Amino acid sequence: MLHTPPVEAFHSFIEREQRRFLAELTEWLRIPSISSLPDHKNDLARCAQHLAQSLAPLHPDRVEIWPTPRHPAVFASWNQAPGQPTVLIYGHHDVQPVDPISEWASPPFEATVRDGRLYARGATDDKGQVWMHLKAIETLQRCLGRLPINLSLIVEGEEEVGSENLIGLFREHSKDLEADVVCVSDTDMFQPGVPSICVMMRGLAYFEIRLQSASGDLHSGSFGGAVLNAATALSRLLAELHTRDGRIAIQGFYDDVRAVSEAERAAIRTLPFDAHIFRQQAAGAPDFGEQGFSPLERLWIRPSLDINGITAGFQGPGSKTVIPSVASAKLSFRLVADQDPARVESLLRAHLARACPEGVQLELTTLHSGFPYRAPVDKPVFSLAKKALERAFGRPAVFVGEGGSIPFIRQISDATGKPCLLLGFGLPEGNAHAPNEWLSLDNFRKGIESIALLYEELGRTNPR
Amino acid sequence: MLHTPPVEAFHSFIEREQRRFLAELTEWLRIPSISSLPDHKNDLARCAQHLAQSLAPLHPDRVEIWPTPRHPAVFASWNQAPGQPTVLIYGHHDVQPVDPISEWASPPFEATVRDGRLYARGATDDKGQVWMHLKAIETLQRCLGRLPINLSLIVEGEEEVGSENLIGLFREHSKDLEADVVCVSDTDMFQPGVPSICVMMRGLAYFEIRLQSASGDLHSGSFGGAVLNAATALSRLLAELHTRDGRIAIQGFYDDVRAVSEAERAAIRTLPFDAHIFRQQAAGAPDFGEQGFSPLERLWIRPSLDINGITAGFQGPGSKTVIPSVASAKLSFRLVADQDPARVESLLRAHLARACPEGVQLELTTLHSGFPYRAPVDKPVFSLAKKALERAFGRPAVFVGEGGSIPFIRQISDATGKPCLLLGFGLPEGNAHAPNEWLSLDNFRKGIESIALLYEELGRTNPR
Repeated sequence: MLHTPPVEAFHSFIEREQRRFLAELTEWLRIPSISSLPDHKNDLARCAQHLAQSLAPLHPDRVEIWPTPRHPAVFASWNQAPGQPTVLIYGHHDVQPVDPISEWASPPFEATVRDGRLYARGATDDKGQVWMHLKAIETLQRCLGRLPINLSLIVEGEEEVGSENLIGLFREHSKDLEADVVCVSDTDMFQPGVPSICVMMRGLAYFEIRLQSASGDLHSGSFGGAVLNAATALSRLLAELHTRDGRIAIQGFYDDVRAVSEAERAAIRTLPFDAHIFRQQAAGAPDFGEQGFSPLERLWIRPSLDINGITAGFQGPGSKTVIPSVASAKLSFRLVADQDPARVESLLRAHLARACPEGVQLELTTLHSGFPYRAPVDKPVFSLAKKALERAFGRPAVFVGEGGSIPFIRQISDATGKPCLLLGFGLPEGNAHAPNEWLSLDNFRKGIESIALLYEELGRTNPR
Repeated sequence: MLHTPPVEAFHSFIEREQRRFLAELTEWLRIPSISSLPDHKNDLARCAQHLAQSLAPLHPDRVEIWPTPRHPAVFASWNQAPGQPTVLIYGHHDVQPVDPISEWASPPFEATVRDGRLYARGATDDKGQVWMHLKAIETLQRCLGRLPINLSLIVEGEEEVGSENLIGLFREHSKDLEADVVCVSDTDMFQPGVPSICVMMRGLAYFEIRLQSASGDLHSGSFGGAVLNAATALSRLLAELHTRDGRIAIQGFYDDVRAVSEAERAAIRTLPFDAHIFRQQAAGAPDFGEQGFSPLERLWIRPSLDINGITAGFQGPGSKTVIPSVASAKLSFRLVADQDPARVESLLRAHLARACPEGVQLELTTLHSGFPYRAPVDKPVFSLAKKALERAFGRPAVFVGEGGSIPFIRQISDATGKPCLLLGFGLPEGNAHAPNEWLSLDNFRKGIESIALLYEELGRTNPR
């Protein structure tokens, strides 16, 4: 049976309705749902309420507001396609603060269109992308007269403050949140016009090291040259965490790093990476890192270690001839599959125990950790998603990585036992956490179309 | 001609008069001449006035108060021994602050005798030691009927705030301050009962290093593993300043270090050094330093390098995944003869220029510097001083070093072209800059006697 996808129908519907779609989104964007500021607690409740009401016209079987100890989440589900797969859509309705407000060219909560962009706090991160899923559902319902798959949706209110209660919700509502795939639209495309699926996201292991060499600071005149200096000891420990050729010098550290196939590396090489632009984005920082890997490979498929802060001795203006007795550093690893933050901690602990000079007390504290995520790209949904993106954007979709960490992606994947499909329509230059956040209207339209096409295709092919 | 030194006469006079000596000193100690606190400016003026008046009964030819832009100095001179050598006595009448006042067992400006100690701010540092010179002059005048040598005296009011104007006074009054030797009583004895002459004092070269690797901090998720981290670069630079065996790894750094004779090293080995007590004084800090040298040698005859402070990136509580673009450190060298702080700066600059990674901006700022001092111990005055100390204390005197730096000692020696004799009667445990500063009354008496004996001997032997 020859099948003609309803790409034209979707396309014309979205073109025709886009002004209304944006007007609706603009109403939602008016609510300053800044999750980190206690004064806005009520706005988060209003924001969830607004979303729940906006879902009603889409005829879900259920719409619920799920309270948490901090900010509520919204749940909805459509079980209207018996025998078809279920997609769980994840998003968040909370936003970042807007300071410094003076740098906004238009008010952050009055969405404004300029030059093909919708400027507002939350335009991309993440209300705009949540809205694209709602409008894809509407597109399917209006163009096909029905939903081709089953859907559920969870939109939390705490993403910008660490998703503290998200995994609790997954545990509590495990039955409601069962799905075949989790679709998350909260990442960026590689470049404007290059539709992207993020298939690898690094994990995190963040530590504080504290060295104490004496019970108090000493005068460098009285003791300089005859006693160990905690700042010197720390400098050595930190310097020895990397080899000269940029590798992490901790025994066993690379044991769990999954080898990446030559095909995958070749795919990364085909991406339109511009070293000059990268250097600009990196504020001119010189190149440094593991030999034999390109910058994108270093960020996506290789782990890294950065010193995030160092504190020792006298830091005021002028001079003080002190031998510091205490020195501390914050340092963090970005991890790749199949590294485990707890194992990294024990390797680091063993390394430091060997390297720390005798007579120096060393304390190692874990401040933060999260597992890396690697999508199972051989599952059919990934190639279907690529195809849908390619149709909507008119250009081949690419698999990309994310050097940063969103620990709950891996947690959701583990909790549901299902892959996460990171279908992001933001752009690196979109000011997601900065003043003048914007969403590309082109991405908005094509994103809705991609999602609708993907869901239609999932329903038609019903892969398992 | 057989000469019997008037040691018995001096001794009995000092014993008899010591109560009065202390009563007089106590009056001077009442004046809170804290040079660092602007509120005490007037006390410094009163303090100088009080000293000038106290000198009058000693019949100097001149007594003058020399104003400076900050606190006045007192000058006096006795040119009453034609053909005899001239000793210039240096001291200071300003004192350290007294905080925390609650830790004082008796009020800091009401000198109190307990257990053979005089407790007061300035009791040792340096009013008590200045007073010993005045009382030695009185002893000579009363026991011999005349001064056996010519004397002049300068007592500044700015030692605790860096002796800013001292060298200016030496330039302005170079004629008045001409002498054959400069006698400074402002250092410690090696141990109670061990009379000591400090013959080596380390210099100082204090720097700040600032590295900048990018125009702004970066997110470790977006760039970690692909760009240079200023904190990592700084750690490496700092770690590489020392070799594994504790030497300073800067090319040419030891070129100007004067070799110390085996005899001098043997003399240091005979000192009653207790490694256990040293470790306690060092707050338990582990041993570290140049191989092949004892702790005292490391402190006195070898240069050292300490990191005094490090600042980089995020230092608050919790975690921030930042790649610091700026990292800075304060570091200082203690120098020995014949090192020159300016040459050390240029060696350090060259070392850092070689070691600093490409693309990183390095700034090196000198914050403080001072030359080391090495006394010309073969001049007769040093053996005469040893003999005088030995007679008064009944125990051989020793040559000791000082790991710290008093830059003006070398400056005075250079300005006058004459040696500085550091005849100190403080004790390491005397709390010079802490609460409950005290002066040993035993040292007070024996110190006066030593000074009188030395001046008498200088007059009698008239060495040049």
